[in-house]
Amino acid sequence: MITWKNLDTLTAYQELANAKKVNLKEAMTGENGADRVKKYSVPMAEGLTYHFAAKQVDDNILAVLKKLAEEAQLTEKFAALYNGEVINTGEKRLVLHQLTRGQLGDKVMADGVDKRAFYVEQQQKIAEFARKVHNGEITNAAGEKFTTVVQIGIGGSDLGPRAMYLALENWAKKHDTFKMEAKFISNVDPDDAAAVLYGIDVAHAIFVLVSKSGTTLETLTNEAFVKDALKNAGLDPSRHMIAVTSETSPLAKSDDYLAAFFMDDYIGGRYSSTSAVGGAVLSLAFGPETFAQFLDGAAEEDKLSANADALQNPAMLDALIGVYERNVLGYPSTAVLPYSQALSRFPAHLQQLDMESNGKSVNRFGEPVDYVTGPVIFGEPGTNGQHSFYQLLHQGTDIVPLQFVGYRNNQMDTDVEIQGSTSQQKLCANVAAQIIAFACGKEDDNRNKNFEGGRPSSIIIGDQVNPGSLGALLAHFENKVMFQGFLWNVNSFDQEGVQLGKVLAKRVLAHETDGALKVFSDLLNI
Amino acid sequence: MITWKNLDTLTAYQELANAKKVNLKEAMTGENGADRVKKYSVPMAEGLTYHFAAKQVDDNILAVLKKLAEEAQLTEKFAALYNGEVINTGEKRLVLHQLTRGQLGDKVMADGVDKRAFYVEQQQKIAEFARKVHNGEITNAAGEKFTTVVQIGIGGSDLGPRAMYLALENWAKKHDTFKMEAKFISNVDPDDAAAVLYGIDVAHAIFVLVSKSGTTLETLTNEAFVKDALKNAGLDPSRHMIAVTSETSPLAKSDDYLAAFFMDDYIGGRYSSTSAVGGAVLSLAFGPETFAQFLDGAAEEDKLSANADALQNPAMLDALIGVYERNVLGYPSTAVLPYSQALSRFPAHLQQLDMESNGKSVNRFGEPVDYVTGPVIFGEPGTNGQHSFYQLLHQGTDIVPLQFVGYRNNQMDTDVEIQGSTSQQKLCANVAAQIIAFACGKEDDNRNKNFEGGRPSSIIIGDQVNPGSLGALLAHFENKVMFQGFLWNVNSFDQEGVQLGKVLAKRVLAHETDGALKVFSDLLNI
Repeated sequence: MITWKNLDTLTAYQELANAKKVNLKEAMTGENGADRVKKYSVPMAEGLTYHFAAKQVDDNILAVLKKLAEEAQLTEKFAALYNGEVINTGEKRLVLHQLTRGQLGDKVMADGVDKRAFYVEQQQKIAEFARKVHNGEITNAAGEKFTTVVQIGIGGSDLGPRAMYLALENWAKKHDTFKMEAKFISNVDPDDAAAVLYGIDVAHAIFVLVSKSGTTLETLTNEAFVKDALKNAGLDPSRHMIAVTSETSPLAKSDDYLAAFFMDDYIGGRYSSTSAVGGAVLSLAFGPETFAQFLDGAAEEDKLSANADALQNPAMLDALIGVYERNVLGYPSTAVLPYSQALSRFPAHLQQLDMESNGKSVNRFGEPVDYVTGPVIFGEPGTNGQHSFYQLLHQGTDIVPLQFVGYRNNQMDTDVEIQGSTSQQKLCANVAAQIIAFACGKEDDNRNKNFEGGRPSSIIIGDQVNPGSLGALLAHFENKVMFQGFLWNVNSFDQEGVQLGKVLAKRVLAHETDGALKVFSDLLNI
Repeated sequence: MITWKNLDTLTAYQELANAKKVNLKEAMTGENGADRVKKYSVPMAEGLTYHFAAKQVDDNILAVLKKLAEEAQLTEKFAALYNGEVINTGEKRLVLHQLTRGQLGDKVMADGVDKRAFYVEQQQKIAEFARKVHNGEITNAAGEKFTTVVQIGIGGSDLGPRAMYLALENWAKKHDTFKMEAKFISNVDPDDAAAVLYGIDVAHAIFVLVSKSGTTLETLTNEAFVKDALKNAGLDPSRHMIAVTSETSPLAKSDDYLAAFFMDDYIGGRYSSTSAVGGAVLSLAFGPETFAQFLDGAAEEDKLSANADALQNPAMLDALIGVYERNVLGYPSTAVLPYSQALSRFPAHLQQLDMESNGKSVNRFGEPVDYVTGPVIFGEPGTNGQHSFYQLLHQGTDIVPLQFVGYRNNQMDTDVEIQGSTSQQKLCANVAAQIIAFACGKEDDNRNKNFEGGRPSSIIIGDQVNPGSLGALLAHFENKVMFQGFLWNVNSFDQEGVQLGKVLAKRVLAHETDGALKVFSDLLNI
């Protein structure tokens, strides 16, 4: 029997709040520190490992976190989710994104069909379509192959697929699975679409229009922009466009598209990279086999997230430590710092995933909560960030917990040796050094050169960014966010906070405003 | 006589802390709200205006902020800076980036020369060089024109110039001042350089190596990577490279470069976009006239920043309100939200500018301060952000002050009308709507659809992102950060917090580690 309780009503949370704090600097110094690193890690899928030695935890706190996980019924709630209960209570929907990559529990029936079979069918249809595009069975009107795919979408239809594309672009080029370049149009700013169209050969471009509802204003506007461009080039838009949408949307059965692939209301935008939303563009860009490997990596990681032992469940442990940092230690933000240029937009995707899921002030019953929920998430790839905002992370007045990601190998083989080490070794040396610098600091009589230390971080270490490990990494964070939502007792799967702005924007465009909004509208010449 | 005092020792700060708080929701509702928007704005340079009606201020608080500015001697300190005093006390250096675009005060002599004349001379040398590249006087060894410029630099040598390039790329294409495409290599991850080189025609590329000291390890490593690639293509690297560095660096008089252009120790990396660091790549990409317009815009804005009346000085007022939000209202982060795709990387640049400048825990005398300093800065362009992290901004448990930027016109003329409005109108309608949605909220009996409001924002409104307005925008933020540093009594111009990581990384590469650092190094196969 599952009960949904607020975090501050749980006995283990009170125990956690009263538990003796860890002196991280002390804990990470000397041989103790070495022992911690060896001991405090959990294996993930696809050769990744989650290391939490540099977090402010010890065996006692870990034991309380484990209790908290049990009292909050995290495993049971996850099982309820993947077995098809209505977890998105706000919108009264199932939450099924894990089903797009595997079956963790019972068969889930909805809308009269087996949903796993439905997602697999969509993936297969996409695979078939992509193969026909690649082998020239589906071409432009002149019978020529498409050479570029352009995703038109915003939010979850943009950030996740774009981050995944960038993560695998060079890997695919190196492994000869690169099929065509992908571009992305998202912003309603007309310069976004104009710049993308300027840089491509539209006659050989295939566009993927992504909108679950088929009514997203930015996306429909950009579609019109693209159609104009195609017509101006003497081309028939319906020969250049496919749709990814829900079966009930106006786009689903339109002759305006070469094909339509389906997602449904049980896949939130920010959780849709493993659905047709990511599937169409990534399968066209890299081939369906690469996309399938990505799904397999995510499915493997999902299985680990079902482990009831919090200390053996990387996503759950990551979630628990994050809640400890946010609610007990009082840290208001978290930085995501991948030491891989391939993951340059992964932090932007996590920013949406996390902040849109858990940036809530009411619990799943609509009652205000008395504790803080989702933190601000930001980040850039290392080593770039080191030459930017790390100054504040090291010596600022606030402590910002850090989530590092590092890989032993880069994606392309090319490297260069300077001063006795390769670039890849320098990259890895930097992330290792940063963990210790943040945790242990360094005393200096010149206080301006003093490092307090005591700044917590975790690191996920892997061999390489490839389709499988990327899927695992993505699923890890999706599941972490889900577990944190369970702990905070919020609904991580709706986003009512985006509605008011839409309503007011429509009013501005209809010139139905007064007061401050009217003055601002005038100032902006609307 | 200037005295440098901690913020919490100022009488006006105590008064500010005790001043009656503003109920923003109330203040911005109805005709009161309209009056505020009309009243609470300050003109900036190049047609921009800073609007602060949706901030938690009223006439009383503004009067106290003005007193605070006077007591903290912000104008006098700025004058000391531009007149050449040693403001960067940590490194015992002058701070002269404003001199790269204009002369605000006295002639500044350093290293035996008039520094304004020195910066102008460098700009002219760059202009001459760029013109020769554009007209084919300077070519590759085969006598062919260069078609791509690639900046090799990290931190301030990357983020600012890259953000400015992206901001003006489409404007330049539209205005026929586009000369060549620019690319950027920054990360020590070898895949960064490999991917850039993969995407260009190296035989027709000119590389700009940017390192003030000439010793930045990432940059030298990437230089070696690029030189290898040039040699492998049968090309002579010295025919393809220029350097931007200080006159005393090992790069300054090397035969390895076609030319060298100089900056000096008085220009911090994050303040270097208007120096040769931005000048070389932007002049090559867009022509020296465009770069000169950019400098003029910045110089115009600098003049406004010298105004002693805080309420007529946009950068100073922005700084004061930010300190009020951070130290009195207790908001830990700030989001930068430009409603322009051209400014897609402007938030990343501001993130460095702000967090590296003011993320400090000691005052300029090296004494710990008892108050919080620089906030976490993050952001993405609107409307993209609306479909991502705005959920937390609207309904999260923490309040995040917002800095909007919006323009009446886009850069390229192309637009499309859908549902009775153009894309540009939709973009503007959205930013206007967001300001009111954040400030006023909307009550709903369903608490999950309730918007508390009371979430403060400012907006800078302009006609268009063009070289002049971009320079003004950049200078505004540089000066805001400077004034905040004065208020917090920190040195905004050094970055000792980045040193420890460098030292430890070297130790890892030399295999001179023990304890936790050794174990992490082993895990990463270094």
